[in-house]
Amino acid sequence: MTDVLSRRDIDFLLYEWLDVTSLTSRTRFAEHSKDTFDAVLDLSADIAHKHFATHNKKADAQEPTMRPDGTVDMIDEVKTALDAYATSGLIAGQFDESVGGMQLPTTVARAAMAWFQAANAGTAAYPFLTIANANLIAAYGTEQQIDDYLRPMLEGRYFGTMCLSEPQAGSSLADITTRAIPQEDGSYRLTGTKMWISGGDHELTENIVHLVLAKTPGGGPGVKGISLFIVPKFLPGTDGSVGERNDVTLMGLNHKMGNRGTTNTLLAFGDGTHSPAGQSGAVGFLVGQEHRGLSYMFHMMNEARIGVGFLAISLGYVGYLKSLEYSKVRTQGRPLEAKNPSSAPVPIIEHADVRRMLLAQKSYVEGALALGLYCSWLVDEHDTVEDAATADEARLLLDVLTPIAKSWPSQWCLEANSLAIQVHGGYGYTRDYDVEQHYRDNRLNPIHEGTHGIQGLDLLGRKVTMHDGAGLTLLGSKVAETIERSRLLGGDTARYADELDVVWNRVVEVTTILRSTSDTATSLANSSVYLEAFGHTVIAWMWLEQLTAVVGKDGDFYDGKRHAARYFYRHELPKVTPQLDLLASLDRTTLDMNPNWF
Amino acid sequence: MTDVLSRRDIDFLLYEWLDVTSLTSRTRFAEHSKDTFDAVLDLSADIAHKHFATHNKKADAQEPTMRPDGTVDMIDEVKTALDAYATSGLIAGQFDESVGGMQLPTTVARAAMAWFQAANAGTAAYPFLTIANANLIAAYGTEQQIDDYLRPMLEGRYFGTMCLSEPQAGSSLADITTRAIPQEDGSYRLTGTKMWISGGDHELTENIVHLVLAKTPGGGPGVKGISLFIVPKFLPGTDGSVGERNDVTLMGLNHKMGNRGTTNTLLAFGDGTHSPAGQSGAVGFLVGQEHRGLSYMFHMMNEARIGVGFLAISLGYVGYLKSLEYSKVRTQGRPLEAKNPSSAPVPIIEHADVRRMLLAQKSYVEGALALGLYCSWLVDEHDTVEDAATADEARLLLDVLTPIAKSWPSQWCLEANSLAIQVHGGYGYTRDYDVEQHYRDNRLNPIHEGTHGIQGLDLLGRKVTMHDGAGLTLLGSKVAETIERSRLLGGDTARYADELDVVWNRVVEVTTILRSTSDTATSLANSSVYLEAFGHTVIAWMWLEQLTAVVGKDGDFYDGKRHAARYFYRHELPKVTPQLDLLASLDRTTLDMNPNWF
Repeated sequence: MTDVLSRRDIDFLLYEWLDVTSLTSRTRFAEHSKDTFDAVLDLSADIAHKHFATHNKKADAQEPTMRPDGTVDMIDEVKTALDAYATSGLIAGQFDESVGGMQLPTTVARAAMAWFQAANAGTAAYPFLTIANANLIAAYGTEQQIDDYLRPMLEGRYFGTMCLSEPQAGSSLADITTRAIPQEDGSYRLTGTKMWISGGDHELTENIVHLVLAKTPGGGPGVKGISLFIVPKFLPGTDGSVGERNDVTLMGLNHKMGNRGTTNTLLAFGDGTHSPAGQSGAVGFLVGQEHRGLSYMFHMMNEARIGVGFLAISLGYVGYLKSLEYSKVRTQGRPLEAKNPSSAPVPIIEHADVRRMLLAQKSYVEGALALGLYCSWLVDEHDTVEDAATADEARLLLDVLTPIAKSWPSQWCLEANSLAIQVHGGYGYTRDYDVEQHYRDNRLNPIHEGTHGIQGLDLLGRKVTMHDGAGLTLLGSKVAETIERSRLLGGDTARYADELDVVWNRVVEVTTILRSTSDTATSLANSSVYLEAFGHTVIAWMWLEQLTAVVGKDGDFYDGKRHAARYFYRHELPKVTPQLDLLASLDRTTLDMNPNWF
Repeated sequence: MTDVLSRRDIDFLLYEWLDVTSLTSRTRFAEHSKDTFDAVLDLSADIAHKHFATHNKKADAQEPTMRPDGTVDMIDEVKTALDAYATSGLIAGQFDESVGGMQLPTTVARAAMAWFQAANAGTAAYPFLTIANANLIAAYGTEQQIDDYLRPMLEGRYFGTMCLSEPQAGSSLADITTRAIPQEDGSYRLTGTKMWISGGDHELTENIVHLVLAKTPGGGPGVKGISLFIVPKFLPGTDGSVGERNDVTLMGLNHKMGNRGTTNTLLAFGDGTHSPAGQSGAVGFLVGQEHRGLSYMFHMMNEARIGVGFLAISLGYVGYLKSLEYSKVRTQGRPLEAKNPSSAPVPIIEHADVRRMLLAQKSYVEGALALGLYCSWLVDEHDTVEDAATADEARLLLDVLTPIAKSWPSQWCLEANSLAIQVHGGYGYTRDYDVEQHYRDNRLNPIHEGTHGIQGLDLLGRKVTMHDGAGLTLLGSKVAETIERSRLLGGDTARYADELDVVWNRVVEVTTILRSTSDTATSLANSSVYLEAFGHTVIAWMWLEQLTAVVGKDGDFYDGKRHAARYFYRHELPKVTPQLDLLASLDRTTLDMNPNWF
């Protein structure tokens, strides 16, 4: 079996570039060392290959179904894999020792999770969502909630979900209609319907912890009235056991193009199917304060968005490795200069166009992985650095980069999967090979956790303008640092630095133009184009950063980094110029389109 | 049900732009009129909506299977639809009256077929392939072959296939190993295995006519030794009846990501499963002369490539129309300028980013449809114009444009399908809606009938260089004519004409640079990039052409054309500049990549 990720690349990014070993000087990570990080990565790769990759195709072909009794049927391999994962303790990897965690750096935990996402996106989603959920309860939950829900999740006995969307309100959370009515005992009763809930029901664990957005009486209009609730499938029993069934009912499973291994559900809260304590209505427990639900959820959502980026990266990466492997063993055709039609066919990696498709994939997935790990490192920096100003800086950088870390891999690692199919030719289009599934699985990522369009609005409408553009300025200073270091290195690296300098300055200039118009509709009309141009520029920065880490190092691996950077600077970065030109012109083509003209 | 194509757009392109009615002045089409063309289009839309669109999802969900006895099982609706199609006489649409055809212009026949491709790509593939096969037998077959195979195919009693690829030789036909041994009676016996054969087996018709490439003894090396054979599933019986089973055996069905409704097969020829006339070996009948098989097949392949372009266009178009419809009925969110979060949500078409995604789709599918119909019109021009020089010109133009007519829709109408999913949000990713299937179906098109990479090599390595670049020069003169006419029109049209002029001159200049190097490997290293830049330029030309046909016309439809052209010139055409810059630099990044560095 082809490896689903490159450990060599991960080692390079973690140790040779980001120097995560130095994080062990922080109090939180003092018990750790390169050895413990390596052990986590080894263990993850091992479980991912043995238990996750092995049922990836089967879980796609035999997706979960709803039984007549309303429970979910799925192939046994999913539970076997998840039990192995839970037993390893990895769910608790980045959590505090006080709640049973390993206190791993987020950077290492993300790299570890990427093995599972690459091996089997569908099965990996369960712990992925559980960790995101647990993060939120750890941050905002009461001691009781931590005992009742967080600990069992970290042990793998419960899984968690995020319940935001409703059938009539996908991206528009202001329009949710799920209601929560306070009860005398301090709990709430919820009624409403939630859509697209991944992991929303299954028989994999003793219990399922839903984090639900709902509106309470007296809240403000729109998003201001939203609060956050823990709504467990089963109410807590005595002594940590699972108690009475809550009024949360599986209404149906969504059948998707990909990501079929994860149950994706329509859930009814409080429709009276169950009557906890003799009364219909789903029992919920407020997290934090009333009406602050959206800000808590965004805490989780930013993590989730970077995690979606990792999912896209992981799927892009595994497709790249499989098409690379295929290109070395599949023989077909001859070099253009071969004059003898009877000469033996060559491995297709010998053809320039196949090498183009492999180089493109390499530049996408390795560039995106660098960004994903850098963002994770910023989380560690924010959480553990002693100097408050540095911590704030890390948070601000993370805020600006999150829309890119989510959207860029979702677009370009999907494109990588398309290229992986193309390298395989007709075989790649069949279900006999794996790459078509990776492509289908990956197509979800530009949609969930904030669509591509939402990310564009977030970046241009908020992230680069907030605090009078402080985030953009800070990012610019980081880019400038890399450019300065790179110029000293001479050669191609210095030349790329000059190119990036020009493009970055253009991005800043275009941002100023867009911000200078008081007509918000015009300035945001092409925010998706802005997102894409900004994204390519950030990934070019990531490639320059990688080049600064290969200086003076010889060997195929480092030459590959150098060459992939060359590909990105020659073939990819120039794509942003017409995008920035369009933005600078304050183009109103989309706004001026009359819907009747379609 | 949403229409699968826009009749209004087809009418515009056929009658207002290409003026196909004027073709009725040609002897071949003298019996026709706008009324007969309209009747064919009405009939096609009617059958397509009633019998094809209705089982599109079902055929995807319940793909054909192979029974233990080696026959193929599929849902009944496929045969019902194809019988309705055959009864209509449309299979014979463009064929001579002498063989039972309607002598329709190819342009009209293609537009008619597009309804079926848009409604149900999988089911439409059977007549599509049959027509391509029949074209070839009509051109090169003997009278006997015409009676034995062509007539029954045109009546819909037999279907046809193209058998080129083999498991070890996909795009590389020089490496096929199927052998044909001449027999004393003038027939041949074939042995070999063919892969990816669409419609290769089924129980839909009395017989299946395979057109098979094979090598005969004494042929030259590589492609020079290839001959073409008719190999029927059942040998001809007496009095037009079907006779003995030939030694052609279904070895297995390929299970693909999309296009599931079409059987796609691995076929064994002459493996001894059957023994026609008491002897193993598949009986074949030579078409034309020995060793000229590839040139005959290319006759069919060019038609097939334009047809694949139409398949991609049709799938892009139906996805566009469905996402347009969805965007008008789905409400979500508010305009950016809305200050009241309690105001009613608006249809999502009101959001600029949704309009961007719809405009992009519109510009892709309508631009591509114009090119497809223009290429079809060139076929009619070539086949029926009296002046030989004009006919030659049409052929030359068609030769240059064929790689674009195949590859551009395969890339950009697939992108349109991705945007159609995105407009639908999470719903678009589910199988409850149609667009995910269109996307999966369309992903085949950059692969079959010559991959994207093969089209690039064909365009840059052959089509623009042959006859000392005569094809490029001729195309340039046509583009220049459009530019001249457009400049006279003033306004946006004149401005776009100036922009196209600049880009076209740059394409010519870059072509000269690429041809000027004697190092073929370098000049062809980025032929896919050349293909893409050339394609965008050609579609920009098609948009300018359409603008010349809307002059002085008022109303939503024409305003829509004007605005889609604006979108293409503002958002799309500028993308070619960095591509042409890369090509002009004779970039060797892909060539210089050492396979060990991956």
